[in-house]
Amino acid sequence: MRKINDIVPVYWKNGRIKWIDQTKIPWKEEWETSSSINELAKAIKTLEIRGAPTIGIAAALGIALSAHNASGNMASIVKQVRKDAIILGKTRPTAVNLFWAINRMLDKTEKLAKAASNPSELKESLLKEALSIQKENVESNRRMGRFGSAIIKDGDVILTHCNAGALATGGFGSSYGVIRTAWLDGKDIRVIATHTAPLYQGARLTAWELSRDKIPFQLITDNMVAYAMKNAGVSKVILGADRILMSGDFANKIGTYGIAIMAKRHNVPFYTAAPISTIDQKARSITIEQRNPEEVRNLLGRLQVTVPDAPVLNPAFDVTPHDLVSGIITENGIARAPYNSSLRKILHK
Amino acid sequence: MRKINDIVPVYWKNGRIKWIDQTKIPWKEEWETSSSINELAKAIKTLEIRGAPTIGIAAALGIALSAHNASGNMASIVKQVRKDAIILGKTRPTAVNLFWAINRMLDKTEKLAKAASNPSELKESLLKEALSIQKENVESNRRMGRFGSAIIKDGDVILTHCNAGALATGGFGSSYGVIRTAWLDGKDIRVIATHTAPLYQGARLTAWELSRDKIPFQLITDNMVAYAMKNAGVSKVILGADRILMSGDFANKIGTYGIAIMAKRHNVPFYTAAPISTIDQKARSITIEQRNPEEVRNLLGRLQVTVPDAPVLNPAFDVTPHDLVSGIITENGIARAPYNSSLRKILHK
Repeated sequence: MRKINDIVPVYWKNGRIKWIDQTKIPWKEEWETSSSINELAKAIKTLEIRGAPTIGIAAALGIALSAHNASGNMASIVKQVRKDAIILGKTRPTAVNLFWAINRMLDKTEKLAKAASNPSELKESLLKEALSIQKENVESNRRMGRFGSAIIKDGDVILTHCNAGALATGGFGSSYGVIRTAWLDGKDIRVIATHTAPLYQGARLTAWELSRDKIPFQLITDNMVAYAMKNAGVSKVILGADRILMSGDFANKIGTYGIAIMAKRHNVPFYTAAPISTIDQKARSITIEQRNPEEVRNLLGRLQVTVPDAPVLNPAFDVTPHDLVSGIITENGIARAPYNSSLRKILHK
Repeated sequence: MRKINDIVPVYWKNGRIKWIDQTKIPWKEEWETSSSINELAKAIKTLEIRGAPTIGIAAALGIALSAHNASGNMASIVKQVRKDAIILGKTRPTAVNLFWAINRMLDKTEKLAKAASNPSELKESLLKEALSIQKENVESNRRMGRFGSAIIKDGDVILTHCNAGALATGGFGSSYGVIRTAWLDGKDIRVIATHTAPLYQGARLTAWELSRDKIPFQLITDNMVAYAMKNAGVSKVILGADRILMSGDFANKIGTYGIAIMAKRHNVPFYTAAPISTIDQKARSITIEQRNPEEVRNLLGRLQVTVPDAPVLNPAFDVTPHDLVSGIITENGIARAPYNSSLRKILHK
């Protein structure tokens, strides 16, 4: 029986929140513990805690912590929770999961303010809600993994990009969870992971998870993708999504669109795997955030690779059009073209 | 009138050879001077002197230096030259230009051994030959630039990869020389240069040359190419070649093949620019050298980006098939499909 070395990147322990500092991976494995909302907010802002679902879970645990720390009657606890929700909401203003988790916790708080019989019941129920959010995420990842593993065959060489592993979720991983499930199912697979410049989440985080799990892999620089498809037997691409439109177009880490084009040229099936919470039913297009140019000039703030004043493009994401997508793997099944109808079905399962 | 800030990366001065240490760019502009063949050989081996034509020129100047340093009669000079040619030939065993330059200098030496009237004439004639090799390279680059500039229009946004600039040649540059010529011709152009991981020749060297020349440019990571084509107006790709087959397939820095695929998807004309000495009339296929895995794990030997034992792919080159190539720009004109006949014509001009 194969085993994996799963990691839970953020969790509740005895009235405190613990998290692994992801800015230190792969150099150090450092755990932080705090009972302070400000410290937690700072950890999200500085990317010690990162990955859309992980951020949501951290914020939910943060709301539970806020109530846990508050003294006085129900009204004063609710007041404190609302104040701390604002602090947590300001950490990553474009993170959809963050607001989804905070709003779910605030809704629960309002309900409990009326229904709970005393402050401790309110506090306990809020913690239970936050732990549910985490548990639901892991269960959803495992369901997604089952659907995804079904399309993976012995001998597959799977190219992946960035990190949508345990570190980015409540545990287990979303697109990486698909790879993990195939591995746990005993399939004979190999993974090729990209560097994912300029923040190197593939090199730093995915390679670290693959290495812990003892799944055979090779790391490549971002410009080796076409070579790997032609010469290293890549037979599938599986990577994450930050936002999926009903058309099937989706935004993901910069580089994804290029990988999709190269996969098409080599007839390599190209899948994205993401929870249905990633599907945006309203948006018709996606605006792409430009990040700090210094990231492209000075790698990880440690290695200057160009002239100090070099003008730079630094889009955080790109958009992959649906004609390049073989399927969208979710916890409710795999959507295939035409996406408008298949995604609608999956959303209503 | 526009001006450029051309650089001659290696040259002869008063019985010594001077070169700019390319491993220090863009951090420092450090010139080395030596009259020792061993020091010159070490500089080539450690990439202080790099770029196929630059290496050839350095080796030719090295042979002239060897004769210059030798004492005794003609026979003992020839003996010393042959000995030093072996030292220089061992520096970069796969560099075609290196052997071409060394052989041309050795042929000249054999001829002069019979024809020269005394040791000083031998020494002077060898130096003249080495300087001719350098001059011919720059003239060839300028001719290539003229042919290339003819296809560049006002408003073009040119994507380039790696460095085939003045630093890689006798001066002016081959594929970068095309961009320079268009700029000197007064054309309204902009350049997008890739990082070119894992050795970052684009970020370190091309951005440095573009910045010195005051040509408008933007630097991107290697995974932003498709984004730049879709969203930043890329209208042409112009990059170098390490080896061109008669089929029109060519080897160049890793990443080139992927750029060609992405250009095809976006209907962006894709050109390689290289001297006819790059055309290999005999080879039917190209073997790709795998470089030290540590380059992918530990960027420029200074920034560890992954787990220490991560397995790695590290091909130095990839091969771009001719169906993706819009044209091959040389000093004798632009070859277009079908390449077998067009390259043959160009070789016999």
